[in-house]
Amino acid sequence: MSLQENAPSLAVVGVTGAVGQEFLSVLSDRDFPYRSIKMLASKRSAGKQLSFQDRNYTIEELTAESFDGIDIALFSAGGSISKQFGPVAVEKGAVVVDNSSAFRMNEGIPLVIPEVNPEAMEGIKVGMGKGALIANPNCSTIICLMAATPLHRHAKVQRMVVSTYQAASGAGAAAMEELELQTREVLEGKPPTCKIFKQQYAFNLFSHNAPVLSNGYNEEEMKLVKETQKIWNDMNVQVTATCIRVPVMRAHAESVNLQFEKPLDEDTAKDILKKASGVVVIDDRASNHFPTPLGVSNKDDVAVGRIRRDVSQEGNHGIPSRLDIFVCGDQIRKGAALNAFR
Amino acid sequence: MSLQENAPSLAVVGVTGAVGQEFLSVLSDRDFPYRSIKMLASKRSAGKQLSFQDRNYTIEELTAESFDGIDIALFSAGGSISKQFGPVAVEKGAVVVDNSSAFRMNEGIPLVIPEVNPEAMEGIKVGMGKGALIANPNCSTIICLMAATPLHRHAKVQRMVVSTYQAASGAGAAAMEELELQTREVLEGKPPTCKIFKQQYAFNLFSHNAPVLSNGYNEEEMKLVKETQKIWNDMNVQVTATCIRVPVMRAHAESVNLQFEKPLDEDTAKDILKKASGVVVIDDRASNHFPTPLGVSNKDDVAVGRIRRDVSQEGNHGIPSRLDIFVCGDQIRKGAALNAFR
Repeated sequence: MSLQENAPSLAVVGVTGAVGQEFLSVLSDRDFPYRSIKMLASKRSAGKQLSFQDRNYTIEELTAESFDGIDIALFSAGGSISKQFGPVAVEKGAVVVDNSSAFRMNEGIPLVIPEVNPEAMEGIKVGMGKGALIANPNCSTIICLMAATPLHRHAKVQRMVVSTYQAASGAGAAAMEELELQTREVLEGKPPTCKIFKQQYAFNLFSHNAPVLSNGYNEEEMKLVKETQKIWNDMNVQVTATCIRVPVMRAHAESVNLQFEKPLDEDTAKDILKKASGVVVIDDRASNHFPTPLGVSNKDDVAVGRIRRDVSQEGNHGIPSRLDIFVCGDQIRKGAALNAFR
Repeated sequence: MSLQENAPSLAVVGVTGAVGQEFLSVLSDRDFPYRSIKMLASKRSAGKQLSFQDRNYTIEELTAESFDGIDIALFSAGGSISKQFGPVAVEKGAVVVDNSSAFRMNEGIPLVIPEVNPEAMEGIKVGMGKGALIANPNCSTIICLMAATPLHRHAKVQRMVVSTYQAASGAGAAAMEELELQTREVLEGKPPTCKIFKQQYAFNLFSHNAPVLSNGYNEEEMKLVKETQKIWNDMNVQVTATCIRVPVMRAHAESVNLQFEKPLDEDTAKDILKKASGVVVIDDRASNHFPTPLGVSNKDDVAVGRIRRDVSQEGNHGIPSRLDIFVCGDQIRKGAALNAFR
């Protein structure tokens, strides 16, 4: 029973979405203690019933008054909702964990992966009536840095080249439904319905649908660049990324090439990753068993494998300080909901 | 009409496979002249009928005698067949174009992408009774180098970091069928049939199924490394690759990070690629329109887009000599069949 008298009062903003639902699921799985929970969504969903941990809730419309007496507010209803209501909730004394990109790069707002930079949250206390806002990084950043940070701590990453394989889940529940619908249509020889994405997604892949900036990178890619620098508190770390949407239902994968300042060999890297919190190493070369999106779906840990000395070392004066790794993580669970709770 | 008295006599080895069928389709589309054509396959398919360009053919069982009087033999029946019968065909005076990996890295065997290194075929003449073997590179190498070579010629590639998104087609017709079957099964809530691949492929992805070597790279990845060095005739070019199988039916995609010896800016790179033979630039940032596997399926050209200055330049003394690109190419058509014909 997670209902406790002295535990914090919660509000889940965007409770009908994929991340909102996963927030509830994580609350439940972790047996997270709370004294009350407010289910908030848009006017459209208000009044609907929702059952959670053997209790029935009525979904309420999100308004400024929603946050009266709330200790922790979990936002996952998009950037504009966060911008409008996040500061209101903070003003009313809530600690806001915001899953949108609205405040991530703002100075003074902690951008936190609990396993990576918990120190950024120092001084923030729940239930003292002193509001604060904590930003949840983008899911691709979380998944990448869960694996890269333990290595970074050991040998300092100078440069990272990332290529992503991003699932439908990253674009929300409607995108997952569209992938399924399109796949059925294509298998029946019908033209695919393109509503969420402007092109066929079934049996296809495409450059991430985020807007492309003037430097040729899309916003998703620049999040990986900028958020890494902020989370590692290192403006000199070099990152480049290519973000691709693949017809996978849930969980992202990333191919990451790492260049370190100090020498780091393959075996040491494996040992470091095996000991890292929230990381599981799946790296069985003999049976060709490595991380997959399906394998990490609904799992808390980020899986890393294909850990190997990069054969392209020669230009670096022969010092073995480059590694290739392949990372998979459940975008919704670890990449969004779970990250808020550690 | 491509039947011509003085044109070469052809043999297609592995005519029932995906690449074999595409060989025929390219022959037809290109109106390639020939005086006769022998359809060869295993004993299992021998005797079956096949219609091509309004003529009926009986598929014959492959034997040493198959190559009597053959000028050009196109092999796409796997490495062991090539090893067994390739030298026989050469001995009998045929020019063999081999699509397998059997001879690719052998010294003295030209490894050719016609747009990239036609000079490697110098001295080889068809129909003179002097046999020769030309190896067709691996499809991932062809697709990557079609885009990278024009840039390499201009500014010399020092290092390439490649991540692939490889379609079912790369594993043959049966793999494409398995992807379709599995997808139907998963949509019906049934367990997926795993015969070709040992794990679920539908709505999933996994590290390429090629055997993993002692250095941690799989064979597919090392082909990209070694074949690039051979084709560019540059043993110092550094390449690393991570090869991933994605649930796309046909055509491969590759995310490529390029580091050049000389400065190369984005606009110059685009101009070079627009002028390159066999390459089409699809790079519309405003409408987020870039190459896709579906867009290049059944197309001769390799499509390149997402051409941009790599933002991670600082460690390189600020010289803009790194670019990111995204390449798509039809693995069967350009990556195998078409490459043999230029």
